[in-house]
Amino acid sequence: MEFKINSKVLEKLLAKIIPAVPSRTPMPILENFLFDIKDGLLNVCATDLEIALRSSINVAADENLKMIVSARLLYDIIRSLDDTQIHFETEANLKLKLTTENGVYNLSYALPEDFPAIPAVAEDSQVTFSGNDLKKAIDLTSFAMSKEDMRPAMTGMLLEFSEEGLRFVATDGHRLVKYINKNIKTELEEQYVLPERAISVLTKLLGETDVKLCLSKTNISFQMGSLEFISRLIGEKYPAYNSVIPMENENLLKIKTADLLSTIKRMGLFSASGTKQVKFSLNKNSLEVSAEDIDHGSNANEKVSCEYLGEPMDIGFNTAYVNDVLSHIEEADIIFKLHSPTKACIIEPTVMKENEDLMMLLMPVRLNN
Amino acid sequence: MEFKINSKVLEKLLAKIIPAVPSRTPMPILENFLFDIKDGLLNVCATDLEIALRSSINVAADENLKMIVSARLLYDIIRSLDDTQIHFETEANLKLKLTTENGVYNLSYALPEDFPAIPAVAEDSQVTFSGNDLKKAIDLTSFAMSKEDMRPAMTGMLLEFSEEGLRFVATDGHRLVKYINKNIKTELEEQYVLPERAISVLTKLLGETDVKLCLSKTNISFQMGSLEFISRLIGEKYPAYNSVIPMENENLLKIKTADLLSTIKRMGLFSASGTKQVKFSLNKNSLEVSAEDIDHGSNANEKVSCEYLGEPMDIGFNTAYVNDVLSHIEEADIIFKLHSPTKACIIEPTVMKENEDLMMLLMPVRLNN
Repeated sequence: MEFKINSKVLEKLLAKIIPAVPSRTPMPILENFLFDIKDGLLNVCATDLEIALRSSINVAADENLKMIVSARLLYDIIRSLDDTQIHFETEANLKLKLTTENGVYNLSYALPEDFPAIPAVAEDSQVTFSGNDLKKAIDLTSFAMSKEDMRPAMTGMLLEFSEEGLRFVATDGHRLVKYINKNIKTELEEQYVLPERAISVLTKLLGETDVKLCLSKTNISFQMGSLEFISRLIGEKYPAYNSVIPMENENLLKIKTADLLSTIKRMGLFSASGTKQVKFSLNKNSLEVSAEDIDHGSNANEKVSCEYLGEPMDIGFNTAYVNDVLSHIEEADIIFKLHSPTKACIIEPTVMKENEDLMMLLMPVRLNN
Repeated sequence: MEFKINSKVLEKLLAKIIPAVPSRTPMPILENFLFDIKDGLLNVCATDLEIALRSSINVAADENLKMIVSARLLYDIIRSLDDTQIHFETEANLKLKLTTENGVYNLSYALPEDFPAIPAVAEDSQVTFSGNDLKKAIDLTSFAMSKEDMRPAMTGMLLEFSEEGLRFVATDGHRLVKYINKNIKTELEEQYVLPERAISVLTKLLGETDVKLCLSKTNISFQMGSLEFISRLIGEKYPAYNSVIPMENENLLKIKTADLLSTIKRMGLFSASGTKQVKFSLNKNSLEVSAEDIDHGSNANEKVSCEYLGEPMDIGFNTAYVNDVLSHIEEADIIFKLHSPTKACIIEPTVMKENEDLMMLLMPVRLNN
């Protein structure tokens, strides 16, 4: 079997697929690209069993062949070449020979008998999306996914189709983000939970290109131009997150996002490393934020200008979580909706963008003193 | 004791000193800044016992005081503040209180009884230098310093004053770099060996500013404007490096630096991970470079256009070392001066810049076959 291809064209193709190659795996076969050359089309794919990437390009090959080649080695060779024509040729003893104007490179290939099959996702349930919209939804919510394996569904991100729009939800029990894209309305109430690895790879692939989502019970596929990204879905049911969202929190704190974020970053230097606790002391149109690190004998407090309408209260938060929430809000003005020092607090932009809805929730922590 | 200072001014000062604060140390006292407030001058310094940094600024303090403060915490607080006036004030029980328009920050300080003294370097033996020239000399040579502790002098960089100029030498026994700045000529033949930590910190501090070097038997000081950098010198004598430099290597290979570097990077993908061996096969005006990884059943060879005048020969090198040498030569054309496959090879730019001299030396490796 032989074909020719330009080095830069192939580099671009392999660069799209390599994110699915696991860097450490107990199954060395996954460290390969699968090259499926069939009827003038070169189909390249890779998988780590959780996610898979697949793309293709026309090549004038003289035969059909399926083979697997060391992904990292081939990718490194191709991208180290200048812009040149490469002649691919298979030889006896499972040898693959690459020839360019100045060089010859021989590597091994193998037959793909044991290479796992990439699941095909039926196209009957599908939605089309702007790549940037999807990226935005992921960027806003993914930080709140749980890092702990206790409840597998919470380690992933919920995609929930509804009449209201497509909801993206992530929570680790301490904070929760719900973002709704109202452009995508469907009559069915379907839930899908994407694993963390899918989210982290997907966010790097998303851009201007439109994305076609295809969904099955067990898998999701994202088609972006000639590239297809497939991920398994988490089987466990997502927790009933709506039950933790308070219906009415009547104490309202309006504040500039940047002002509070700047204060919180400083408080992070003073809050004790164990509890990371920061205290908000609220009085009419007045907020004092304070933190203390008893072990190091240091403490700090700052006044932050705000509008506060509600009961005077002292409420504690985890500095890192407040920092996370504030860092992910683009809008200049936010509102904290509070009930009491032991009940969940809602944080939202004061003005919502058209066709979207963003809500962040933070659980308070019990104050030391 | 109290004084006022602008946050951005103090941040700039502390940013210069913090590189000398060790990130891990068995002596926690070294994790502090020493603040020496005396007669209207705030002198800040830090040391890890090997290197020290010191700078000062005028402050209108009402008393003289020496104190030590947690370097990382203070630096992080100061740089997290917006542009604002900070009021420093010491209180009872070794408390330091910082007050800004909106905030109050309390930390602990200590008396500097156990803080190590920063060595003073007498100014009787001194040279002035352009910061950029010194940076260039370090950048060209430091990669060849030994990473192994067997011979302490070789882990450092040699500064050798001579009639020819100031020589910078580094070697790990496998490769050697000698760079001469001919602008700095002295009659004495003096040798000083700088430790690696000094080199790595110094290179980040160097820039446009002129540098005044002061030297003693045990210490070196670099004064850059208001900043002083002090390092201890390595006591061990530097090896007689001149004895390994061949006098006459009569086989000459002229080649483009970028062409060979590009080939070497690809060969690095094929050379076996243990030996990292790459073979140069030289014939009249012809160079073939090849590498083989028997464990992975892969190999590669490339022709590189060149001029070669000399005996036909096969000579082996360590790919990583050839890569290091070529990456550090700015000039477009280089010359390899070879004697035989077992003798040291000299690599130099074909055209030397005015007032400097650069020589790199590579030891060959024995070829497998």
